Amino acid sequence: MGFSFTVKHASQENRGRIGLLETFHSRIETPVFMPVGTQGTVKAMTVDDLRAIGFQLILGNTYHLYLRPGLDIVSEAGGLRRFANWPESLLTDSGGFQVFSLAKLNKVTEQGVNFRSHIDGSSHLFTPERVMEIEMGLGADIAMAFDICLPYPSNFQVAKEAMERTHRWAERCLKAHHRPDQVVFGIVQGVTYRELREESARTLASLGFPGYGIGGLSVGEPKPLMYEMLDYTVPLLPEEKPRYLMGVGSPDALWEGVARGIDMFDCVFPTRIARNGTALTSLGRVIVRDARYARDFSPLDPNCQCKTCTEYTRAYLRHLFKAGEILGAHLVTYHNLYFLKQVMEEIKLGLRTGTFEERKAEFFARCAN
Amino acid sequence: MGFSFTVKHASQENRGRIGLLETFHSRIETPVFMPVGTQGTVKAMTVDDLRAIGFQLILGNTYHLYLRPGLDIVSEAGGLRRFANWPESLLTDSGGFQVFSLAKLNKVTEQGVNFRSHIDGSSHLFTPERVMEIEMGLGADIAMAFDICLPYPSNFQVAKEAMERTHRWAERCLKAHHRPDQVVFGIVQGVTYRELREESARTLASLGFPGYGIGGLSVGEPKPLMYEMLDYTVPLLPEEKPRYLMGVGSPDALWEGVARGIDMFDCVFPTRIARNGTALTSLGRVIVRDARYARDFSPLDPNCQCKTCTEYTRAYLRHLFKAGEILGAHLVTYHNLYFLKQVMEEIKLGLRTGTFEERKAEFFARCAN
Ligand SMILES: [Zn+2]
Ligand SMILES: [Zn+2]
Repeated sequence: MGFSFTVKHASQENRGRIGLLETFHSRIETPVFMPVGTQGTVKAMTVDDLRAIGFQLILGNTYHLYLRPGLDIVSEAGGLRRFANWPESLLTDSGGFQVFSLAKLNKVTEQGVNFRSHIDGSSHLFTPERVMEIEMGLGADIAMAFDICLPYPSNFQVAKEAMERTHRWAERCLKAHHRPDQVVFGIVQGVTYRELREESARTLASLGFPGYGIGGLSVGEPKPLMYEMLDYTVPLLPEEKPRYLMGVGSPDALWEGVARGIDMFDCVFPTRIARNGTALTSLGRVIVRDARYARDFSPLDPNCQCKTCTEYTRAYLRHLFKAGEILGAHLVTYHNLYFLKQVMEEIKLGLRTGTFEERKAEFFARCAN
Repeated sequence: MGFSFTVKHASQENRGRIGLLETFHSRIETPVFMPVGTQGTVKAMTVDDLRAIGFQLILGNTYHLYLRPGLDIVSEAGGLRRFANWPESLLTDSGGFQVFSLAKLNKVTEQGVNFRSHIDGSSHLFTPERVMEIEMGLGADIAMAFDICLPYPSNFQVAKEAMERTHRWAERCLKAHHRPDQVVFGIVQGVTYRELREESARTLASLGFPGYGIGGLSVGEPKPLMYEMLDYTVPLLPEEKPRYLMGVGSPDALWEGVARGIDMFDCVFPTRIARNGTALTSLGRVIVRDARYARDFSPLDPNCQCKTCTEYTRAYLRHLFKAGEILGAHLVTYHNLYFLKQVMEEIKLGLRTGTFEERKAEFFARCAN
């Protein structure tokens, strides 16, 4: 298999579309939510669980895996898919977000980013060329270009210079990349400035990437502002290429993002809140530890068919969390990922049948997640 | 289904036997190892995992479940099997071990044991009658009588008095118990005194329990001394009743226990060490975090067919433990339980074919676990 993307159906109601993303290992219907396997595992889930839910594309974090276990070990194992026994498709981010958010003492020059590991304080240099080398070693189907991700808010001039540098780095990434069974996506930046977002989309589009990430969003700005940025950006990206809204994956943002033409999403949010005992349900969020569920022998989500909801009760889940049992984290993670998958199925049904806006309104009325 | 035990085959080599234990929910071949689900879940495992390995009988802890989530909640759920969605058989201990080892400030009188919760310091009284009430509420197939479990070493006079009280409590348990779909096992005590162990076995045998636990062992005494106690005790227990060596489950002790006529075992050891990254394997213990496995892309146990060993490498497992990922605890727990199940299959094959001693010698030579 090679890599391709085909729009199969375009909504009449909005910019949403159903597509077929063919990677080197799977055929994936879009729009798609990608669970995040930061350290080579989607936390509290097995590969069998992910496949049982129907996920075919997950994410790995370059920054984390480069630091631990290290590129050499993952490469020797035959890449991250083989290391983690993941038979389906994989996308790796570039570490652009993590070197700014997680690493200590980062220093940015035209060459790249010097940073210290958050694990042991050791010093490292990420350049576009080095990151491509690492991502080629990790061997995902899709590698993201190395970018500069600024916080919100950021000064216009700072944002402009970081964006321009990101564009130069995008070219360097393309030049350095040479793995035939992997593609590189460029990343649109520009913080929350319309002018910069538009310039970034145009510039990257002209470089002819096989797909585009929209980065630097969901970093603290109000959601309406994030959606506004999508309204400016997406129309300037090529129709026939997949668009990936990076780091976004709450149920409401899936509806809003798809309506604006987004094909791919990822977020640690559904798995992270699950480990703290918060479930996304068809009736809104459920805080599993809450005393009100102590004797609630009903399913976590009465409208969900996942194993957690068909086999266990809220009272049992609450007990597991109160008792600090791993099974609690597993069962709620399983449900949250299953739930997001079902939300995406509902979204696609809306796109297919011209009932997107209606279904979206019904979803928001029912569950203000 | 009712409750019964039948010896199907007795070894010519030793006191070992193969039996069929029919409970109210399963037909279980013995000798059998029972995984421990202290708080209503076998840590880091799902019910599907346990069934996939072939376990039909697991243990729940009365002390823990009584304190959290509480008897009322488990009863309302329809008992522990329904609460935890466990469709097979269940055994509950009586809390006799925990009130002495875990609880704070226990005070023993003829009536029972006053203790403070290790969770919140609250005050509680366990009497034989109260424990039977709790175990009937938890609703396991097999409930253990409330006993006094002394540390090793203990003074002879203290041991004798505790044993005599345990016998009186055993009678009170039998008298208080009235759940038709549950049986009560008595517990032999007597620390490491032959005279007491023999007296305890005779006395309890005379009370006509449907099965017998051998308690108060594996509490710090040398293993040869524990085996000696079995040599004194087992011949005095009725042939046609199952014998359960409580809190014992290391691979070597399974061989030694079965050879001495034990039919049932339980232990937190294989699951507890798994969560710390120690695997029981056919070639001895493997400390998964060890640096020597960083680039070891071979299976955890080359002779094991479990999902962990067929799908993942030592290098990946090591990475999971170094990175603090839950999946590591799950995969090694899965393997350790699978391994113990396979050890028991090997033991049964030895009993069936008159090759027990030969197989035992081979096992000990290969893996001094
Ligand atoms: Zn569910
Ligand atoms: Zn194994």
